[in-house]
Amino acid sequence: METSTLGGLDRIFFPRGIAIVGASNNPEKLSHNWVKGLVQAGFPGGVYPINPSEREVLGQRAHASMRDVAGPIDLAIVCVPRTLCLSVVDDCAAKGVFAAHFFTGGFSETGRPEDQALEDALVERARRAGVRVIGPNCMGVYNPEGKIPWGPSDLMDVPGEVGFVSQSGGHAVKMAEIGTTHGIRYSKMVSYGNGADLDGGDFIEYLGDDCRTGVIGAYLEGSRDGRRLASVLRKVSRVKPVVLWKGGRTNQGAETAASHTGSMMASADVWSGMLRQTGVVAVRDMEELADTLLLFQQVKQLNGKRLGVVCGLTDGGGGESVLSADACADHGVDVPRFSPGTREKLSSIYGEVGSVLRNPVDVSQGYGDVGKLRQALGLVCGEPQIDIIAVYENVETLTRFLPKGVMDEMNRLFIEFASGQSKPLVCVLPPGASDTAWLGARQLLLAGGIPVFTSMDRAARAIANVRSYSARARTS
Amino acid sequence: METSTLGGLDRIFFPRGIAIVGASNNPEKLSHNWVKGLVQAGFPGGVYPINPSEREVLGQRAHASMRDVAGPIDLAIVCVPRTLCLSVVDDCAAKGVFAAHFFTGGFSETGRPEDQALEDALVERARRAGVRVIGPNCMGVYNPEGKIPWGPSDLMDVPGEVGFVSQSGGHAVKMAEIGTTHGIRYSKMVSYGNGADLDGGDFIEYLGDDCRTGVIGAYLEGSRDGRRLASVLRKVSRVKPVVLWKGGRTNQGAETAASHTGSMMASADVWSGMLRQTGVVAVRDMEELADTLLLFQQVKQLNGKRLGVVCGLTDGGGGESVLSADACADHGVDVPRFSPGTREKLSSIYGEVGSVLRNPVDVSQGYGDVGKLRQALGLVCGEPQIDIIAVYENVETLTRFLPKGVMDEMNRLFIEFASGQSKPLVCVLPPGASDTAWLGARQLLLAGGIPVFTSMDRAARAIANVRSYSARARTS
Repeated sequence: METSTLGGLDRIFFPRGIAIVGASNNPEKLSHNWVKGLVQAGFPGGVYPINPSEREVLGQRAHASMRDVAGPIDLAIVCVPRTLCLSVVDDCAAKGVFAAHFFTGGFSETGRPEDQALEDALVERARRAGVRVIGPNCMGVYNPEGKIPWGPSDLMDVPGEVGFVSQSGGHAVKMAEIGTTHGIRYSKMVSYGNGADLDGGDFIEYLGDDCRTGVIGAYLEGSRDGRRLASVLRKVSRVKPVVLWKGGRTNQGAETAASHTGSMMASADVWSGMLRQTGVVAVRDMEELADTLLLFQQVKQLNGKRLGVVCGLTDGGGGESVLSADACADHGVDVPRFSPGTREKLSSIYGEVGSVLRNPVDVSQGYGDVGKLRQALGLVCGEPQIDIIAVYENVETLTRFLPKGVMDEMNRLFIEFASGQSKPLVCVLPPGASDTAWLGARQLLLAGGIPVFTSMDRAARAIANVRSYSARARTS
Repeated sequence: METSTLGGLDRIFFPRGIAIVGASNNPEKLSHNWVKGLVQAGFPGGVYPINPSEREVLGQRAHASMRDVAGPIDLAIVCVPRTLCLSVVDDCAAKGVFAAHFFTGGFSETGRPEDQALEDALVERARRAGVRVIGPNCMGVYNPEGKIPWGPSDLMDVPGEVGFVSQSGGHAVKMAEIGTTHGIRYSKMVSYGNGADLDGGDFIEYLGDDCRTGVIGAYLEGSRDGRRLASVLRKVSRVKPVVLWKGGRTNQGAETAASHTGSMMASADVWSGMLRQTGVVAVRDMEELADTLLLFQQVKQLNGKRLGVVCGLTDGGGGESVLSADACADHGVDVPRFSPGTREKLSSIYGEVGSVLRNPVDVSQGYGDVGKLRQALGLVCGEPQIDIIAVYENVETLTRFLPKGVMDEMNRLFIEFASGQSKPLVCVLPPGASDTAWLGARQLLLAGGIPVFTSMDRAARAIANVRSYSARARTS
């Protein structure tokens, strides 16, 4: 038996070898796709299909048992029926496997006493043998840097600095998917399901120490050790932001969560009190989680939440200004008036006709003039009262009412402008009709480092969240 | 001078002839595109470019003045500088034009006393001459049935039954664009800007009487006659739903609105009190407006808001269930437990392993089995406690983890199922990675009459809104 160092979870995220227990040649089985994903991704360690009925799976020699494998195995991905799981733990122990990830479900989450007992027995046996357990009932590890794709798939993006810990496999894959389109790049991700052994607190603590991870997102439904979780959240939040989405934050949701991951129910009040005390950034849903992680990734911190808003890139900036002011007010984001000097200069560029020359500034009267827009951005950015700039961009009207190419020119201006000074710039790109144009604009902006949101409401929520963390970090 | 019947606004929406005052041959001018849009759309009445410097515009003979036009003109679209607007009113009066729509801006919205005075003079002269004014500072009329495209563009969809009245041209075009992708089909739309003469109340009243309009959306920033507006809203709300988005519903937003359309400021409290009393459905933003209009269009009314939720079409239904329960709780939408009989039957289809067999029901264990899904839908729908069904569909995981074609098969099932019984079915399609697949799924569902929302939060808000109107309509 090889020795394993408990404590750091590096051997889970950078395993020397991975066994896929139950791997089959049937391409409709997820176990098959787990092997396929690792092989296709070029995972640098050993990939070991474990199945007495197979000789090889996708060119990887199959073994009847992990005990027969010559090379080291740090992580076992277990896809066999739950009745076989105890013996898999024995095999892991014999082989010196660091952690067993049980994709297999049917444990405490069913609510049946016999399934709970099986889960308890599994953990007890694993602990006695020094094998850590991920799950059961989960999707396990995703690590782009270590060439471990997301679950039984080929989903893998370039590595980034957002860590994500999820009690739900479905939400984890969705966040991974959203990352690829919305520019959230992950350092490491783990879905840990029932959290019978390693749980949210363990993984958040690990990511807190991980130098590759700059911000942590988490989806938690509950915890078996609330006190320890609170202590971890408090400790990690001092070092880097933890953006936490609590599933089951309402009573109706908490009841559902109880039958999903068998999470202990704690009232919404208890949770929200705990979260407030720990300094985490609490969010309500997946959209707010994704938006907030994206903004943390791009801007790190905000010195304030006084927003300069630029609207009306084509026309219609009046209504956009009002909408923006309302959305910002909803989330406590200030849209302060510009100084008389700035208003005067804006007025000399655009005239006063039909324009709102306060803040939000409506540049409708420029009719797509990119030079004027550059001047206006400079003026807004130059206001000492402004901490961050938001541009409201209606892709459909831009492409419909302005000559071809003007929108791209504007987007390149935003990228160039943002990189040339220190105040962050974000874009609001509400979806509409011309999906192709919209997707192209989003891609261009994200590639240029500009965070993109689909509504001013979502942008304002993210700004408020990042600012609230930055403000606490300053004072603590 | 031809006579015009004041009162009904049919001559605005179905004009016998339209003059475009200031129409030019320069394709970069919006006046040019107004002519182009009408010609391309096949507007059945006369299209008259008015410009002493042009002989013809896009094949339409130009006239120096409206007075020179032989045929009737019911609507004048005015694109000349504001200094010429008073004389345009005289021309309208001489020609017997029913209404002049002033695209031209630079009136009360600038906040300058001299511009306010010009607007007052314009309205006074028009009223004395019996000419109605739309605007100034607005985009005017859109009427798919009457072949009037949206503003100076070729934007036009098939006619439907949603009327929309907007003080903002930008929001109007955005709502028109959203309609084409999200399946909202409009009967008539009008953007009326400063509302110096005809204002929101007038148009809402007209749409209230319009048999083609089944539900009315409105974006209002203010009103010159709050009492009359309240009375119109009360009257129309008794007959059909009015979904109202108040721009400037916060103090920060109200200040901005004041400089946009020169709207009188009323405090957020005054407005929300007024809206409550009138029975309108008040919404916070464009997303909620669009979602609510879509649901009204598709389901007309809801007998209750007890929602049956189906999650986990591929896998990951646990987290989706929790998310759904939370989002519904946020908006007062009930997700009642199923009866023991239904749970038992669901359990016989899916087993209990890893499933949530209450409500939301997690069908993950079906691994994409469409036959089982059909059975489950039937059971959920058969529950007497359920008024409406929501399916949470993750396009990306469906296409990533299930064989090709299964997702389409499921979507066809939803369409077939919804048409075969009386309880409404909606789909939640959160966006993610594979945009093409997502767009295809949305299009298929919308074409099949299924309302599609991008999050459970948005679906729940719309359900709560439609239900609140239906409940009032029942008791009144």
